[in-house]
Amino acid sequence: MQETSQSKTNAGRFFEDYRIGDVIRHAVPRTVSGGERALYQALYPARHALYSSDEFARSAGLPKSPLEDLAAFHIVFGKTVPDVSLNAVANLGYAEGRWHLPVYEGDTLRSESEVIGLKQNSNGKTGVVWVRTRGLNQRDDVVMDYVRWVMVKKRDLDAPAPETVVPELVDVIAPQDLAVPEGLDFTAYDFDLAGEPHRWGDYALGEKIDHVDGVTVEEAEHMLATRLWQNTAKVHFDTTARPDGTRLIYGGHVISMARALSFNGLANAQMIVGLNGGAHANPCLSGTTIRAWSEVLDKAETGAPGVGAIRLRLVATSGGEPFALKGADGKYLPEVLLDLDYWALMPI
Amino acid sequence: MQETSQSKTNAGRFFEDYRIGDVIRHAVPRTVSGGERALYQALYPARHALYSSDEFARSAGLPKSPLEDLAAFHIVFGKTVPDVSLNAVANLGYAEGRWHLPVYEGDTLRSESEVIGLKQNSNGKTGVVWVRTRGLNQRDDVVMDYVRWVMVKKRDLDAPAPETVVPELVDVIAPQDLAVPEGLDFTAYDFDLAGEPHRWGDYALGEKIDHVDGVTVEEAEHMLATRLWQNTAKVHFDTTARPDGTRLIYGGHVISMARALSFNGLANAQMIVGLNGGAHANPCLSGTTIRAWSEVLDKAETGAPGVGAIRLRLVATSGGEPFALKGADGKYLPEVLLDLDYWALMPI
Amino acid sequence: MQETSQSKTNAGRFFEDYRIGDVIRHAVPRTVSGGERALYQALYPARHALYSSDEFARSAGLPKSPLEDLAAFHIVFGKTVPDVSLNAVANLGYAEGRWHLPVYEGDTLRSESEVIGLKQNSNGKTGVVWVRTRGLNQRDDVVMDYVRWVMVKKRDLDAPAPETVVPELVDVIAPQDLAVPEGLDFTAYDFDLAGEPHRWGDYALGEKIDHVDGVTVEEAEHMLATRLWQNTAKVHFDTTARPDGTRLIYGGHVISMARALSFNGLANAQMIVGLNGGAHANPCLSGTTIRAWSEVLDKAETGAPGVGAIRLRLVATSGGEPFALKGADGKYLPEVLLDLDYWALMPI
Repeated sequence: MQETSQSKTNAGRFFEDYRIGDVIRHAVPRTVSGGERALYQALYPARHALYSSDEFARSAGLPKSPLEDLAAFHIVFGKTVPDVSLNAVANLGYAEGRWHLPVYEGDTLRSESEVIGLKQNSNGKTGVVWVRTRGLNQRDDVVMDYVRWVMVKKRDLDAPAPETVVPELVDVIAPQDLAVPEGLDFTAYDFDLAGEPHRWGDYALGEKIDHVDGVTVEEAEHMLATRLWQNTAKVHFDTTARPDGTRLIYGGHVISMARALSFNGLANAQMIVGLNGGAHANPCLSGTTIRAWSEVLDKAETGAPGVGAIRLRLVATSGGEPFALKGADGKYLPEVLLDLDYWALMPI
Repeated sequence: MQETSQSKTNAGRFFEDYRIGDVIRHAVPRTVSGGERALYQALYPARHALYSSDEFARSAGLPKSPLEDLAAFHIVFGKTVPDVSLNAVANLGYAEGRWHLPVYEGDTLRSESEVIGLKQNSNGKTGVVWVRTRGLNQRDDVVMDYVRWVMVKKRDLDAPAPETVVPELVDVIAPQDLAVPEGLDFTAYDFDLAGEPHRWGDYALGEKIDHVDGVTVEEAEHMLATRLWQNTAKVHFDTTARPDGTRLIYGGHVISMARALSFNGLANAQMIVGLNGGAHANPCLSGTTIRAWSEVLDKAETGAPGVGAIRLRLVATSGGEPFALKGADGKYLPEVLLDLDYWALMPI
Repeated sequence: MQETSQSKTNAGRFFEDYRIGDVIRHAVPRTVSGGERALYQALYPARHALYSSDEFARSAGLPKSPLEDLAAFHIVFGKTVPDVSLNAVANLGYAEGRWHLPVYEGDTLRSESEVIGLKQNSNGKTGVVWVRTRGLNQRDDVVMDYVRWVMVKKRDLDAPAPETVVPELVDVIAPQDLAVPEGLDFTAYDFDLAGEPHRWGDYALGEKIDHVDGVTVEEAEHMLATRLWQNTAKVHFDTTARPDGTRLIYGGHVISMARALSFNGLANAQMIVGLNGGAHANPCLSGTTIRAWSEVLDKAETGAPGVGAIRLRLVATSGGEPFALKGADGKYLPEVLLDLDYWALMPI
């Protein structure tokens, strides 16, 4: 008779458990329904019309309203946590994120990650792991993929360092590499119903937009959100997991909150199609009032009728002056929570 | 290069921006699903059987269970906030609210408001705007409409006062003007499944019912609810928006809470078909234990088989003695949160 | 004119209102949708693959992913509260709980309870009532049933004691009496997607598993959950209902939380098919960090291909040493919240 078993629970992977080329099939596929949309709207002030109305989506050439792009991202990401970030010290970055196919009610998502980079740190205690994660639907089509790199602890400090492989990643996805959903057509776009009159042509490079609104976040909300994406990292849920008794808010909650707040000024930045990079600059705790501002970084045409691409910096803050980002030392100001660089599609 | 842009965000309309006869098409249509029903039941102790069970709804002649009437109201109302009440000082009243068609899963709602009244206040700084708001479905059928009037700030105090137009509004919708859903039939009504044996005939004019139960409300809950209806008024979400750092609970949250509490004693007041008037007597904050009582104001027959109409006063309070409403000065007592006058349909 | 009416609200049943053989049809049938699944995943860290993915469920021989078994239980249970436990002093136990049929989106559930036992307590003030509750779908098929007994107050202390009837209940459901869903087949089970490699054969009798993770619970969350199941017992919602101003967390919330936490170590204990017994050992309040551990009590084969049954003790705690249950006095330790004994189905 076995008295107890630590071996049945998941201890997570350590740095020496990753090998270049390994493909990890992540657990717990997930079928999405109308429930996810309603909850997304309850959790965030999300108002982009394409994701709110089947009719609006149809008028833009889609069969119906898809799942919010960031919800798809959170679901795909959440599945990787038990295999990639359970023993992570830090989430270092994102790159080359692309949404390839809209996700619709009834679709089932799963994730897999390929190890594409490894670099042991000079202290010999940790290392950096790069993975390319793919979200797949029930037909094994890739609905999105992105690269993430994290700093992971070693289990055994004597384990030999692997050969260093640092993947070459583009800083910015080239516009021609963005996937515009099949059939997307903004030539009959209804600006009244979308909420703002500003077209792609109305945004200037370098233009900055203060999104004005703020939302003070509560413990119950970020935990509901994080569980919804089946992300089970302890630090988000368990007040005994961190020395100071706080629960760290999942970075993705801040991303979705900031994106939803950006409706006010960017209501027509309908679909997110590329994630060039992102930094969770400072941790966010319950009680914080999240605000957001954006900067237009680039613009490009797409082959789709009436559809332009706009590259935006989305910054979430806990207050302070709008448009302030980094101090004289080049470091993020303490009130900056998020600095995200993404491509969206907008009516020309 | 444009450095920053305040012009991209919505500053809202001021008093002088409204013209009699203007029709404002509000933004962000919304397709409803089973998610909204589940969330409504999670947010409120909602138990009216017609809205909980497809089978019960079928036995009453409907194709399936509709969206709660108040959820439809909140969705239609929420869309008007950016255009009507962003610069409102006060929500002064409701009248002539009628539900014309049940809303079902898959329906897409949008709203439009017609300016039907304008009256500048004697102080020259504010004015009252009356709008008739219509909620429309994807077939452009009106699913509900109501009149609301709000006090709105002037942007430019020197703007000339418009000609005063005060719409004539009925105090109470006449029973023959209520829309009974096509096919509604309560002759096979199952009182066991509905939860109470009391029929239309069992309620006497002037009868008052203490609904007994109470719910203590939390910040996370009212924010989830208010976002769900895509109502983005700052005061509900942002602790920095009001000098005292509190978040004001959306009045509609109190309406839905009180209506759900009224199940205990009015389980058979199934469908809300008319809103005669309503006052948010005092603000409601998180931590309040909401209670409710009702008074039977009127009763009427309808043409539909087995279906009677009952006119009810629904009062939500934060405590105090049941049935207390106003003080000797004719003003609402401080514990009164809501005084609502509505018509519901009940089995005879 | 009737001035007020206490008679319209539900005062609940008292001990002398129950008669052996009475069948109570409980109110408010409920149609379930994708909204309930999404909310369940938002409220609990629920990751069992069969309930998350339609594809996974299909690969196991089911038509699609069913509603979580415990969600079905909560819905069936919630309906009984107004008739069974409104005047209950204590929820004393569960027995003979069986899930007979999976519940799918679109199904409508209702409940009925048969009084099968009565025993007045020697103090003459209270008595114990045993009911067998059945959850039925829209085809009147029993989807689950269980026995519950509660201690209920007498209204009239002079009411004569009924003849004592104590039902004979089995301590443990015999494996051959468990209902394995028609078509269930685990021969093509994908352990990667399920999240753990451990098969039925890998679990030893007496083995104990510390599920490691913890969730700190919030007021808003347990109220959302409890309302979702239309359980309206005052003590869960109203800070004025208990002398100390706390809201008691619905015992079922603790059950679902512990079951979801048990994923980590029991990811393949997919379906719950039997509830042998359960005790809510100590009350749970907001702010508690719920943890869980399990013990393997028994194992049995089933007739279904690749499907084994495993009998588990699931213990939820508010902290303390894992695997500690009772003190030297034979009483539950103060940190033990729940001691549940159930059968689950697992791939062999």
